[in-house]
Amino acid sequence: MTKVAVLGSGSWGTAFANVVADAGVADTVLWGRRAEVVDEINQRHLNPDYFPGIELNANLSATTDVERALSGADFVVLAVPSQTLRANLDLWRAHIPRSAVVVSLIKGIELGTSRRMSEVISEVLAIPGERVAVVSGPNLAREIAQRQPATAVVACSEERSAVRLQSICMAPYFRPYTNTDVVGVELGGAVKNVIALAVGVAVGMGFGDNTKASLITRGLAETVRLAVALGADEHTLAGLAGLGDLVATCSSPLSRNRTFGERLGSGMKLEEVIGETRQTAEGVKSSQSVLELARATGVDMPITEAVVAMMHHQLPPAQALLQFMSRSAKPERYGLGEPSQGAHPR
Amino acid sequence: MTKVAVLGSGSWGTAFANVVADAGVADTVLWGRRAEVVDEINQRHLNPDYFPGIELNANLSATTDVERALSGADFVVLAVPSQTLRANLDLWRAHIPRSAVVVSLIKGIELGTSRRMSEVISEVLAIPGERVAVVSGPNLAREIAQRQPATAVVACSEERSAVRLQSICMAPYFRPYTNTDVVGVELGGAVKNVIALAVGVAVGMGFGDNTKASLITRGLAETVRLAVALGADEHTLAGLAGLGDLVATCSSPLSRNRTFGERLGSGMKLEEVIGETRQTAEGVKSSQSVLELARATGVDMPITEAVVAMMHHQLPPAQALLQFMSRSAKPERYGLGEPSQGAHPR
Repeated sequence: MTKVAVLGSGSWGTAFANVVADAGVADTVLWGRRAEVVDEINQRHLNPDYFPGIELNANLSATTDVERALSGADFVVLAVPSQTLRANLDLWRAHIPRSAVVVSLIKGIELGTSRRMSEVISEVLAIPGERVAVVSGPNLAREIAQRQPATAVVACSEERSAVRLQSICMAPYFRPYTNTDVVGVELGGAVKNVIALAVGVAVGMGFGDNTKASLITRGLAETVRLAVALGADEHTLAGLAGLGDLVATCSSPLSRNRTFGERLGSGMKLEEVIGETRQTAEGVKSSQSVLELARATGVDMPITEAVVAMMHHQLPPAQALLQFMSRSAKPERYGLGEPSQGAHPR
Repeated sequence: MTKVAVLGSGSWGTAFANVVADAGVADTVLWGRRAEVVDEINQRHLNPDYFPGIELNANLSATTDVERALSGADFVVLAVPSQTLRANLDLWRAHIPRSAVVVSLIKGIELGTSRRMSEVISEVLAIPGERVAVVSGPNLAREIAQRQPATAVVACSEERSAVRLQSICMAPYFRPYTNTDVVGVELGGAVKNVIALAVGVAVGMGFGDNTKASLITRGLAETVRLAVALGADEHTLAGLAGLGDLVATCSSPLSRNRTFGERLGSGMKLEEVIGETRQTAEGVKSSQSVLELARATGVDMPITEAVVAMMHHQLPPAQALLQFMSRSAKPERYGLGEPSQGAHPR
């Protein structure tokens, strides 16, 4: 039987391991650092820290022993914080089977290097891209743990690996679609947190569904421009890992990024918001990496620019909005290199 | 000075006429059937039926005299119910200036003929496509009347007309983008009501943001398949008139379509929902026209099919959901004719 090792017993690691167990075609082992979490999963099929009252699949076993988790694994699924991935991989490298497909559940860009998670994996493990896959999509962990209907993208440059990964995580309530565009899937997951901050600011300023939908749509348009410049297929961004994840994140009042933006938009000072936020919202950090990528590729990302200016350079939200709304009139689809679609300055 | 006549003083006609007046580069006349509405607009700059307490631009004038409204108009903007468009145009035809650009604000498909609104206009007025334009996007009328920031698409097969239309409705809070793909813009506006019904059903069943985002994304994917089969550019659907309008409609608790679906999803019988709904939700009717178009073009539209089955053939929501989730595993981007993207039956 296929063996799947999920490394990281946080909310998304636990929920995804449970999906694989529910799919029922692979042995699933979840590795966690804390013995009490592992014991609860093994003995009571619960992870009360994240999902109080939700019963996990009884076939899902957990361990604190990473060597045991990794031994003989066909798929190694990584669910650790983005900025700790490199250090964790250094520790685990020796135990990851040479034939395993390594799967990232992680959304973010490495600070300093601007590398995507799959790039960090390829580099540290010295394995080719076709052995690295990613899972992404509109996947708020709590709803997945509750077994609410959801969809996702499983992406690998090698389509056969994507199809194999699809088959091990296709549960009755979880519908994964294959894709071969890893770059697009990862950029969708990283940039959405930046756009969610902007949406939060608009909500905090008291604006409604048109403004939110406009920011989501134009935010996706600038994500597409960046992704295409970095080699992605733009259709990926119109799919579950782009649009889908963006809509879920921007709709959810649980999203840390949206909440951070809302506080700023409602008139709190930046320092106050940071002071009240236990964990920095991912989009605050990654907005700078995204803008660096945009500048390196010459791509226009006005919403990301506004977010960086608000989050790092004290630009007041009302002024950011004014700047955005008063840009020159444009065709809807500009900046993608087709001659009929240049801007019309007025 | 450019003259703009807006025919129809309902919520969107009034709000759009006010945008044009706020843009300040054209004379704007709003035609309405009811003298008391016209008088309120002229004397107190209010349309209290739809927008109590919101002051309209003082330069917006109104009239019940359609001949006067149309005389010398450079743009004739139509804001009447979709199923009355043909009859209204028959009445107005003689007074519409031969050089005017005729602009549709109307979302829907004509029952019986499956024609888009711009096709009805071209046919009845016997004018070529380049004189017909459409405006669409995430434009909940009340928020536009409140002058909240929003974006839209102005589309005409003749780009110069689109750019002229853009310039007359670019207000400080309203940012129109040009597009030349009228087919895509109109299909986005018509199919979104069908998808909003499905989202409403899911919300009524108690599902959260993942399910909603999945339905929005896969709903847009099937809209793209249909639109492309009918000659549209798929990018249009990823834009404001597709994605943007869909997200706004599916997010808004004010949407009649979403509310109708919610009631059905929460367990009410179809007849009860219809009994409690004063006006039939647009998506209930258009789901059948959309499915007819899909069948005529051989396009797979599983969400639309489920909506038709629920709205017209008594399929229980739980069963519709099960059918959707248990379809065969697929690549994300199937059904768009590229060989590497065929389905993988399992």
